[in-house]
Amino acid sequence: MKILVINAGSSSLKYQLFEMEGTVVLCSGIVERIGLESGIITHKTFDAEGNATKVKKELPIPNHNVGLTEVVALLTDGENGVIQNTDDIQAVGHRVVHGGEFFNKPTVITTEVKEKIRECFQLAPLHNPANLQGIEDCTNIFAKATQVAVFDTAFHQTMPSKSYRYAVPAELYEKNGVRVYGMHGTSHKYVSETAIDYLGLKGKNSKVITIHLGNGCSMSAVRNGECIDTSMGFSPLDGLMMGTRSGDIDPAVVFYLIDKLGMKSDDVYDLLNKKSGMLGITGDSDMRDIEARFNAGDEAAILGLHMYTYRIKKYIGAYLAALNGADAIVFTAGVGENDHGVRLLAANDLEHLGIAVDVAKNDKLRASDIEEIQTADSKIKVLVVPTNEELEIALLTQKIIG
Amino acid sequence: MKILVINAGSSSLKYQLFEMEGTVVLCSGIVERIGLESGIITHKTFDAEGNATKVKKELPIPNHNVGLTEVVALLTDGENGVIQNTDDIQAVGHRVVHGGEFFNKPTVITTEVKEKIRECFQLAPLHNPANLQGIEDCTNIFAKATQVAVFDTAFHQTMPSKSYRYAVPAELYEKNGVRVYGMHGTSHKYVSETAIDYLGLKGKNSKVITIHLGNGCSMSAVRNGECIDTSMGFSPLDGLMMGTRSGDIDPAVVFYLIDKLGMKSDDVYDLLNKKSGMLGITGDSDMRDIEARFNAGDEAAILGLHMYTYRIKKYIGAYLAALNGADAIVFTAGVGENDHGVRLLAANDLEHLGIAVDVAKNDKLRASDIEEIQTADSKIKVLVVPTNEELEIALLTQKIIG
Repeated sequence: MKILVINAGSSSLKYQLFEMEGTVVLCSGIVERIGLESGIITHKTFDAEGNATKVKKELPIPNHNVGLTEVVALLTDGENGVIQNTDDIQAVGHRVVHGGEFFNKPTVITTEVKEKIRECFQLAPLHNPANLQGIEDCTNIFAKATQVAVFDTAFHQTMPSKSYRYAVPAELYEKNGVRVYGMHGTSHKYVSETAIDYLGLKGKNSKVITIHLGNGCSMSAVRNGECIDTSMGFSPLDGLMMGTRSGDIDPAVVFYLIDKLGMKSDDVYDLLNKKSGMLGITGDSDMRDIEARFNAGDEAAILGLHMYTYRIKKYIGAYLAALNGADAIVFTAGVGENDHGVRLLAANDLEHLGIAVDVAKNDKLRASDIEEIQTADSKIKVLVVPTNEELEIALLTQKIIG
Repeated sequence: MKILVINAGSSSLKYQLFEMEGTVVLCSGIVERIGLESGIITHKTFDAEGNATKVKKELPIPNHNVGLTEVVALLTDGENGVIQNTDDIQAVGHRVVHGGEFFNKPTVITTEVKEKIRECFQLAPLHNPANLQGIEDCTNIFAKATQVAVFDTAFHQTMPSKSYRYAVPAELYEKNGVRVYGMHGTSHKYVSETAIDYLGLKGKNSKVITIHLGNGCSMSAVRNGECIDTSMGFSPLDGLMMGTRSGDIDPAVVFYLIDKLGMKSDDVYDLLNKKSGMLGITGDSDMRDIEARFNAGDEAAILGLHMYTYRIKKYIGAYLAALNGADAIVFTAGVGENDHGVRLLAANDLEHLGIAVDVAKNDKLRASDIEEIQTADSKIKVLVVPTNEELEIALLTQKIIG
């Protein structure tokens, strides 16, 4: 069975084609600069050994439909193609950012489902419209395939009300849906399940804290495989400090910027989403550049990394309290998998809470598979688990179509 | 030595007169409805056994100066007075809400100090102007007394930058002072010192988490007597859920209310400060009413109390992580001292973090002095310490005037 995974953004479209027997990636790619003067398609085909053949094309791509048509041409190309025609694809799994309270699991797409994705536009105005466009286009192009929506918010729908409600007038929840939704759910689900399997705790009581550190950052507290709390809230702005997002901040700062400094609310929103986080403190948002400056003794980089990791540490403590202990904490995503400095700063000095990182193991880790980095006497395991959202979407899609 | 403690609000003025030999309260009172059509003064005089004689007066009190003049008349009253004339008062200790980054300890008031209190007006627009008015009036009326300012923010000035900085563009801190200041510092200082003394840890390494639960609620992580983190931020809106304040919330909710629901930023500010918290969830802000409804099975009250206490629990965990363990957690202020239900919900199910509350001890506690409520095998002590901000202000004032 072949499953195509689609992640449609406002001006980009990522895809990955899986052969589910053996869960092999046949090809993957990205269409960029959709709607701009000149678009780019980068397409990789993998052979049985995993060696890639790369094709790059530049051409105007006015919309997602044109982009997808170009992708189909590459997929079915006489020389480098991996399928004969679009009918070879049994299902398309779509990443959909926001499922509101409608969806707590992957769902076969119907007219009704599309309507609900549309109803969530105001909760994810940058993402859901593009996700829906991708669905519409794929429905036309892969007409025989089952279209499945996999929601970033679904994993968090198991949270209890004490975790997801805000302390604002109840009608803002009841009428307007103002609550914690959380994001990165597919990643938190994938790495927590992987960790639970690895620890031999499948079907048993388990407590895991997942720490997803990529461009966006979020954490989840997971009890028996179900999310009970997460750090992103109503939007992806809340919680941990990120590349360009502020994370947790006194909302009074927003009023100060609007009422005292005379900023427009749109500009404040932009400031907190695009000019804050590591960028706001250090002037850089790429963690590798910041680490280099940190190692050279740069004050802003030192402050930025200490803030970034101190907040992770506090969330570890908060979720240890929420779960009453943990079997493991799990680092994942770009920074979590590759940045030993961040992992160490976040998880050191926690011996009294049962967490101790083995500095040497942590330093030399180049994670390509699940690894343990705690000391021998650490009560709580410290794991690094590479995330794979595309694979998770493919697996969930396969499961739902039976 | 006699010290008068003054807490001047925008339309009220609280006072307490201490005889510092034996730290006895001679009298205390409150002037209310200043500037309104009819004001009220409630004045209590205490005899050697602590029995109170109460006087209540209703009269127009157009401003703080008139209110203070009336208080002086009561203090020097031939029959019930406690001093002969204003010269009997050696010092006046003023509660000042915001000292910005200028003040990390109590300070004798000079023209320069008043100027700095004025510079902090924009950080505490509701409080600092009234505090300064009280200082000006007392300087005139108690002309021979040393005037001392005791700042709510001062105790938190020891926080490291990773705790007090927000992840916003650095110039907002450098030019505009956007950072965590914290509040209730006088209370956190008093109860943490009291706990450290009680535990025999004075001058030794100590780690204490203080939980101030009154109308406003805040927590502090205190290492070796110094605050290293606190839950209130740039303003008193942040952190724990309170009677009418939201506490922690995704700032994106503010933008949603302004941009999608068309609210004015002033109205959103009001909503988060005055219509949220326990009031927003349950319709009540008095914890006793909410507890009664909770016990009767009322759903909103159950949700409200679970949210309120779950957030305390998460901050306990966060500060355990920040401190790498703790010697004690300390409940204080109206709710913290008197509400056993709140204490239990906040601190139960934390055995794996070394905290276990003795339910019977907690239930029967009616704290008038420092008490322990943990089980015999709880690694971390759970204390209830009655706070006394007026006494702390008097003691700090005495110390500074030598």
